[in-house]
Amino acid sequence: MTKPGITIDLPDWLESFLADSPRIFSTTAERMGFVIELSRLNVRNRSGGPFGAAVFDVDGRLVAPGINLVESAGCSILHAEMVALAAAQKALGRYDIGDAGRLKYEIYASTEPCAMCFGAIPWSGVSGLVCGARGEDAREIGFDEGSKPDDWVLALNRRGISVERDVLRAAAVAVLREYAEDGGVLYNPGNHGH
Amino acid sequence: MTKPGITIDLPDWLESFLADSPRIFSTTAERMGFVIELSRLNVRNRSGGPFGAAVFDVDGRLVAPGINLVESAGCSILHAEMVALAAAQKALGRYDIGDAGRLKYEIYASTEPCAMCFGAIPWSGVSGLVCGARGEDAREIGFDEGSKPDDWVLALNRRGISVERDVLRAAAVAVLREYAEDGGVLYNPGNHGH
Repeated sequence: MTKPGITIDLPDWLESFLADSPRIFSTTAERMGFVIELSRLNVRNRSGGPFGAAVFDVDGRLVAPGINLVESAGCSILHAEMVALAAAQKALGRYDIGDAGRLKYEIYASTEPCAMCFGAIPWSGVSGLVCGARGEDAREIGFDEGSKPDDWVLALNRRGISVERDVLRAAAVAVLREYAEDGGVLYNPGNHGH
Repeated sequence: MTKPGITIDLPDWLESFLADSPRIFSTTAERMGFVIELSRLNVRNRSGGPFGAAVFDVDGRLVAPGINLVESAGCSILHAEMVALAAAQKALGRYDIGDAGRLKYEIYASTEPCAMCFGAIPWSGVSGLVCGARGEDAREIGFDEGSKPDDWVLALNRRGISVERDVLRAAAVAVLREYAEDGGVLYNPGNHGH
């Protein structure tokens, strides 16, 4: 056996979308609007599940976007949040995004994180999480959140990570429904992580 | 901004180690011995944290190895289990390793999974997890498991994933201690995920 090499390619539509996007998103709503638009474009371009995410600095500067690539990349760990965190770390050149708490960054997610992404957030060095749709909205169309603690918001807060929920929830849910109505793949039968 | 591209490079020592390794590991102890050796070589070669993992098929054939690459790759999601799962999915050409439950594969981990890797396992399609050192052994040298449910074994069992613990635990712990005594980096200050 030779050693494996893993390359994560993001879809081409992302290139032109990013070229046309602002670099700074001033408000919480603008940032959430951007990640919801990522989720929508991911559905329309059939490049993955209906989930988008992004890391922003304290001024609202986009550090890195993320989209769900499970199906298109054939890799179950590539949820939108994981892609955004890995891409942000690459852009910043460090695995600890907040640089030992000296700098503040937030991850925005079009839907609340599953158990895996919930577990990944504290290791990433972001100091805040902002969510659109609720986990129950994803469950309603057949996705599974995994075994996430009931008090997951508190668990993040205790680690110094703020959580804001229900930002543009209705708009985020509309993309989930569009995906479901479109007959989108609920990957991993029996275990529909999102 | 141009779209991010993410490449995960595994260290060169892995190439020669894999070339010299058998393709089939007949017993549980041989498979665990292999992932503990991965963790030891990762420490000795200073290519990451003291953690190894691998996916095996039902005959003990090695599908993919994984090592912790957080520090060397500058990416907090690259725990040994995540690397092994992603590499196995690449090798098999599908994001659902077990192909909708038709095939049985196990992931071996030199230390019990943190909250992120615990959350990732059900999405991967493996049907079993075999662990060496306990989470508390990693905590003892300063690593953090994250907010993993107390009943994490039961939570995996309920999803049809078997869990076997304490396989060659002493040998796995010895590598953790070697790393600690060597002054290995406890990455992400305040949040030492493993």
